[in-house]
Amino acid sequence: MTPTITAFERSPDRGKGQARDMRVRWALEEVGQPYDVRLVSFSEMKQPAHRALQPFGQIPTYEEGDLALFESGAIVFHIAERYASLLPEDANARARAITWMFAALSTIEPPILERESTGYLERDKTWYAERLLMLEDRIRNRLGDLSRRLGKADWLDGAFSAGDLVMVGVLRRLNGSGLLEEFPNLAAYVARGEARPAFKRAFDAQLAVFTAASSG
Amino acid sequence: MTPTITAFERSPDRGKGQARDMRVRWALEEVGQPYDVRLVSFSEMKQPAHRALQPFGQIPTYEEGDLALFESGAIVFHIAERYASLLPEDANARARAITWMFAALSTIEPPILERESTGYLERDKTWYAERLLMLEDRIRNRLGDLSRRLGKADWLDGAFSAGDLVMVGVLRRLNGSGLLEEFPNLAAYVARGEARPAFKRAFDAQLAVFTAASSG
Repeated sequence: MTPTITAFERSPDRGKGQARDMRVRWALEEVGQPYDVRLVSFSEMKQPAHRALQPFGQIPTYEEGDLALFESGAIVFHIAERYASLLPEDANARARAITWMFAALSTIEPPILERESTGYLERDKTWYAERLLMLEDRIRNRLGDLSRRLGKADWLDGAFSAGDLVMVGVLRRLNGSGLLEEFPNLAAYVARGEARPAFKRAFDAQLAVFTAASSG
Repeated sequence: MTPTITAFERSPDRGKGQARDMRVRWALEEVGQPYDVRLVSFSEMKQPAHRALQPFGQIPTYEEGDLALFESGAIVFHIAERYASLLPEDANARARAITWMFAALSTIEPPILERESTGYLERDKTWYAERLLMLEDRIRNRLGDLSRRLGKADWLDGAFSAGDLVMVGVLRRLNGSGLLEEFPNLAAYVARGEARPAFKRAFDAQLAVFTAASSG
């Protein structure tokens, strides 16, 4: 059964692949599962029909038969459990890969998102410049710890896993900030993820949506 | 094999059960698995020996034979997978329960933590009062959505699950803020979680550590 995901009708990042459908598309491409996409506008996202699928009025959602899921982390995990290749077979290695998914979403992403939302919500405030520096130091602390753990390895724990997929998806939110470049092994790690054929197919698919919306 | 978790030698919340070992203790109590606790000081947490277990120098960690995990979400999930009762057997219901774990950690907790860290890091700043109001509105938006979804149900999706355990753990970080009380069904939901015998055993265990440290 072909799953259906939702994505922005017009992505606010102008097709840079920062919206969270990107992580789900990438996971589906990694496991070789075709999917359908239903595009939703910003106003549709806040309506009851969409909120029945996504209580917080966001994208992506995932529908497969009578299963409906939300939260990109949960959807990637579902895809990783349902199909082979994104989680190791060994039970301990599998638990560690899942740990990196949670670490990406609970420990690394929050200060990165806070920096973004400060950019949206506080840019005109007197405190913006000072607070931005504080936030960037919080991000650097996390990146420093992650950089030390990754060391010279290609991926966080053995072969590429759903943990790396989510972590690369989180870290590439820093593209353009200059912060990632302060940690060359993390920048190389993100580049390694972005070079995967499945990433490229997913990226091109979300970019095509934005391009079509802009020219339409 | 009895697992060993780590917890603060002296909890910064003075035994209110807000440190993240609480969620792991609660999960272990729900499934009836005894556990050992190794207490770590703030300086030990930042040393290489602890960082080998927890790259970000935090608690809790979880060791069981040759398996070592970190991130409370990942540990609760591991416990829920390894033992019965915290995840439904039906595959779709199980995926939805896991979705609520991710929603608690990725969607609900970040603005709550941001409010806490603002309290620690920005209390002396000129902007503190104004920013606190902005953050509280961000939290209210999330709580409003969650409150509508919960409605009159006891738990988020059928029977109590790991999703509820993590969500209650996240929401009770708001204890004392007054925010939870604006959404009576969420306040009742948290109270329902806190009334579970397993919660109480876990709470008493972490409080006993603080009490012993304070009188020692």
